[in-house]
Amino acid sequence: MKSFLTLKSVEGVLALIRTFAPLDTEKVPLSEAAGRWLAEDWHAPEDLPGFDRSTVDGWAVHARDVFGASEGAPALLECVGDLSMGKMPGLIIEEGQAARILTGGMLPEGADCVVMVEHSRPVSDTLVELVRSQAPGDHVIYKDDDAAKGALLIPAGRRLRPQEIGLLAALGQTEVPVRRRPRVVIVSTGDELVPCSEKPAPGQVRDVNSHSLAAFCRAAGAEVELAGLVRDDVALLRETIGRAREKADVVLVSGGSSAGMRDHTVDIFTSMPESELLVHGAAISPGKPFILARSGEKCLMGLPGHVGAALVTARAFLLPLLLHLQGGEEKFRPGVRARLTRAMASAQGRRDYVRVRLSRTEEGWAAEPILLPSGLMSGLVHADAIVICPENSEGLYAGEEVWAELLA
Amino acid sequence: MKSFLTLKSVEGVLALIRTFAPLDTEKVPLSEAAGRWLAEDWHAPEDLPGFDRSTVDGWAVHARDVFGASEGAPALLECVGDLSMGKMPGLIIEEGQAARILTGGMLPEGADCVVMVEHSRPVSDTLVELVRSQAPGDHVIYKDDDAAKGALLIPAGRRLRPQEIGLLAALGQTEVPVRRRPRVVIVSTGDELVPCSEKPAPGQVRDVNSHSLAAFCRAAGAEVELAGLVRDDVALLRETIGRAREKADVVLVSGGSSAGMRDHTVDIFTSMPESELLVHGAAISPGKPFILARSGEKCLMGLPGHVGAALVTARAFLLPLLLHLQGGEEKFRPGVRARLTRAMASAQGRRDYVRVRLSRTEEGWAAEPILLPSGLMSGLVHADAIVICPENSEGLYAGEEVWAELLA
Repeated sequence: MKSFLTLKSVEGVLALIRTFAPLDTEKVPLSEAAGRWLAEDWHAPEDLPGFDRSTVDGWAVHARDVFGASEGAPALLECVGDLSMGKMPGLIIEEGQAARILTGGMLPEGADCVVMVEHSRPVSDTLVELVRSQAPGDHVIYKDDDAAKGALLIPAGRRLRPQEIGLLAALGQTEVPVRRRPRVVIVSTGDELVPCSEKPAPGQVRDVNSHSLAAFCRAAGAEVELAGLVRDDVALLRETIGRAREKADVVLVSGGSSAGMRDHTVDIFTSMPESELLVHGAAISPGKPFILARSGEKCLMGLPGHVGAALVTARAFLLPLLLHLQGGEEKFRPGVRARLTRAMASAQGRRDYVRVRLSRTEEGWAAEPILLPSGLMSGLVHADAIVICPENSEGLYAGEEVWAELLA
Repeated sequence: MKSFLTLKSVEGVLALIRTFAPLDTEKVPLSEAAGRWLAEDWHAPEDLPGFDRSTVDGWAVHARDVFGASEGAPALLECVGDLSMGKMPGLIIEEGQAARILTGGMLPEGADCVVMVEHSRPVSDTLVELVRSQAPGDHVIYKDDDAAKGALLIPAGRRLRPQEIGLLAALGQTEVPVRRRPRVVIVSTGDELVPCSEKPAPGQVRDVNSHSLAAFCRAAGAEVELAGLVRDDVALLRETIGRAREKADVVLVSGGSSAGMRDHTVDIFTSMPESELLVHGAAISPGKPFILARSGEKCLMGLPGHVGAALVTARAFLLPLLLHLQGGEEKFRPGVRARLTRAMASAQGRRDYVRVRLSRTEEGWAAEPILLPSGLMSGLVHADAIVICPENSEGLYAGEEVWAELLA
């Protein structure tokens, strides 16, 4: 007798995923920090840029000396020198004086603004006409404009993009505290599977999920180990999962294509130390036979054997888990707006993940649903994006504008 | 006298970028191929799955034996055995017979469809009642449904996502031809710069662009080497760029914050072997002082010294270049639809890249322009996305719906 599952909603599964503790913190060199998630709030250790700087090439002056200056009524000032980049200015600007300054140069004492070189006319080696009135602070960045010492610059949980790396560099942070990468061990089960380097005999197929899930996990920041293929043998599977659990933060079991083996996976998960079954069946399609358990601090996850279903489930649940373990989250699900080329029916009470191919039309993007069984791989390979048909919907209309989440 | 630049449009620069030849092809193991760009069209070397398979747990039968079957009028069939996974079925289904089959199992000779286990009632060890009428092909994937031998499966220039990795694995492709990673050497210039590990003296700042651009290039698939900091000395800069050119596919020169050094960069670029200046000034803001030259097959690129401007220019031009060299392109610019919280003025004739912070409102995403000079880093750190104000526009209205490209 097949048992009926009590399907968990997507939101319910995500709430359970957030109950796992983020991994501990490690320090990595700045050059390896990009793409990682900052583990602690980071405050400015000093002012940035640290001194008042010009934002243009021009003349450092007192604003009151160019007050009202114009093409017709230029201000005539004494040139007192060229300021070098990267040095303390060796002079003080007195009333009626101007010094040549370059973009990024340090504003000399006395000066309170910069007139752009475009608004100057040299008169002689020692005299210059300035033809633009400026206010104090014009074309100047003050010493703490970018960051004031002590200010919160990057909050914990932020993913480090090139600009965050730049800010860390600007303030001399050569080591960065980030959450450790999750260690994932992937267990693939099924009597029909052979390694992808082998030629399958009739009735056999090559192991796909190990490779596609490994690529998926690595892209999400994880370190991956393949535990190899396991026959549909309960004792062997239990032993493999137990060993994987020792070294992994997340054990992924993919396969168990037969109904019997799926039940064995649940039994094995619940037999692990300090174990608790959290989810057995999720209200999504494809991906219903999803399993989630906690064993101590470790996470045990069972994904469907069907390739398409495995990747959709990975996107729905494994990605949020891997980011959460790293202290991060998906703030956005990047995508494009698109019009459906045909209607899509959907069952109420479950979230449907419709694979679509995107094409550019004169009115914008068109999303063409790919209607292939989730057991076929080619459907996902043709897909550019996923359109979600929500739980409370019976379907989407042809021509309806939808949000197409890109399959990166 | 400052020279006036003839600014190139964004489309004009991109067209020039596409004139560089993509890099040559290398073979990488399947486990390292994710995220790379396929170098050659890839055709199915054999049929996939290679044999007819059941997509459900159930009974393999002749469709004509269950024709018209229903709950009230079941078809009574003889059970002739359980089919094992991963093996040739050891039997032939004759008229009036049924064999138990699992999801993914090989359809035995004679059978032409599968009845789901849910639609069966065991009568005895040797008899089963089936209560659903099926057509030939129901719940069956045919031997070449996923891929027919010789069919084009992945075109050249496609980025390899987890699903493509899966399909390659399914067909035994353990090595994959991809374009070589671009080698980028980054040269940072400026008398005011010190390495990020040092404490700057007054007037000095730490080198930022080397680190943020390195992170940017690595995320775009490149291998990066830092040539280190170069004083504003023409001979030294020429020598450094010349050496970088020897080993790089792309030489990035960042800095030259002074007008004079910018001109020197152009002179040095044009003095390199087989050199041609392609762009000197681009119609974008920030990022106007962009330089692009070809030297033989090598690409020489000058980016603004301002951090914000450097990263915006990198996004506009360096990313397309690095993808093009790998034989790929950005098919989508992922983002979200958002409403501007305030109006943005823009100059006609140039493309403005407005940095925005995104926040979730009841009506969807709101995009708040960040109005900080491009010389400040914090503006980009606060930014979630870029809103482009096109060349033919004088600005964007408050409340206007815009496309916000995510800054990944």
